[in-house]
Amino acid sequence: MAEQTQLIPGNSLITNTPEEGRQLAVKMARLVIKLTQPNAEVRDKLRPVYAEDAAMLIAIGQTVATEFATIAAANNYWK
Amino acid sequence: MAEQTQLIPGNSLITNTPEEGRQLAVKMARLVIKLTQPNAEVRDKLRPVYAEDAAMLIAIGQTVATEFATIAAANNYWK
Amino acid sequence: MAEQTQLIPGNSLITNTPEEGRQLAVKMARLVIKLTQPNAEVRDKLRPVYAEDAAMLIAIGQTVATEFATIAAANNYWK
Amino acid sequence: MAEQTQLIPGNSLITNTPEEGRQLAVKMARLVIKLTQPNAEVRDKLRPVYAEDAAMLIAIGQTVATEFATIAAANNYWK
Amino acid sequence: MAEQTQLIPGNSLITNTPEEGRQLAVKMARLVIKLTQPNAEVRDKLRPVYAEDAAMLIAIGQTVATEFATIAAANNYWK
Amino acid sequence: MAEQTQLIPGNSLITNTPEEGRQLAVKMARLVIKLTQPNAEVRDKLRPVYAEDAAMLIAIGQTVATEFATIAAANNYWK
Repeated sequence: MAEQTQLIPGNSLITNTPEEGRQLAVKMARLVIKLTQPNAEVRDKLRPVYAEDAAMLIAIGQTVATEFATIAAANNYWK
Repeated sequence: MAEQTQLIPGNSLITNTPEEGRQLAVKMARLVIKLTQPNAEVRDKLRPVYAEDAAMLIAIGQTVATEFATIAAANNYWK
Repeated sequence: MAEQTQLIPGNSLITNTPEEGRQLAVKMARLVIKLTQPNAEVRDKLRPVYAEDAAMLIAIGQTVATEFATIAAANNYWK
Repeated sequence: MAEQTQLIPGNSLITNTPEEGRQLAVKMARLVIKLTQPNAEVRDKLRPVYAEDAAMLIAIGQTVATEFATIAAANNYWK
Repeated sequence: MAEQTQLIPGNSLITNTPEEGRQLAVKMARLVIKLTQPNAEVRDKLRPVYAEDAAMLIAIGQTVATEFATIAAANNYWK
Repeated sequence: MAEQTQLIPGNSLITNTPEEGRQLAVKMARLVIKLTQPNAEVRDKLRPVYAEDAAMLIAIGQTVATEFATIAAANNYWK
């Protein structure tokens, strides 16, 4: 188990812009996968699997959307 | 990895109307797919796969609904 | 791509009643499918696929529930 | 298409108790399925399919949970 | 149909602690399955199916997370 | 059934930092799986199944995102 993987870069949900918030959402989604599968070689083998599978690309989009909802609320929607 | 892909057009969640907010939700969902699969040729090959698969069309709808929830809240539901 | 498809009938999330809000949720879910698959013939072929598949009927319900959550919040739950 | 199916019994999200709110969530989830598959005979054939399939039972639970979140918020959690 | 199954033990979302709220989330998720499949024998046969299937265990976790979100909000996060 | 499994370490959703909140989200997701499959041997057999399956890794990410949304709200986004 790689409990030491940093799960939130910068340890903060606050970003300057929506774009940066979206990038954080993508990173947070990826870091959970890294925590669950800490072996970089295995992850490298899995990457083309999901990047060329329409259903998995959509599923990744769903996860990023959920992470982004939290980050957007944390930033009061950058208003 | 295409970290440079712009993930939120205009870098803002604020739109003039619900319709524009909905279009933004669709674009944001597509841009995550573009980030994950930056190869345009592969994406072009995948498009008919999901556009002709009932389950994937529904899954895309789920992602757009989640993105739209965030955008609608950001715009205070255009009230 | 049929970016011109109207995605929110009436361009508003506000409805008179919960029932109308629910109907709007159903329509919004369908219009995303129409945008993603603009070919009416293909959609007509897909309809019986999902209408006779228990798993897809449930998935449609999940999407409608998510759309409705946003519409209900926009209408302050019709209180 | 059976657009006339009533989608929200009583046309209100307000209930006296959490238990009644939960029952409403179940009914609302079922009525979307009825709208999408208006043929009662087909629905009767599908019922044992999902009632004896662990994955579908879990998926139904997910939809009910999402509907209930909206109903609970509408009732200010019956506080 | 077993509409009489009690869906929310104690008919309340309010609990003394987060731990009790989490247990309520698990119970509420299970009771929807009981309502949809009232036959205890069938449920007993399905239990090992999902308890030994990684994908279903994850899906159960998703449902519990959604139920818990509602319960946590109802309790103002036990603050 | 292992109803005695502790489902929320520390019986609190409050954490000092976003990073700790994220770790709590991961733990809470895992503890629901432990509750549903209390047999450690079976869980050990399932672990490589999901850790080497792209679709399941994504699904785990979705669950963690949902748990984290609740924890982040409980902590008022650590603002």
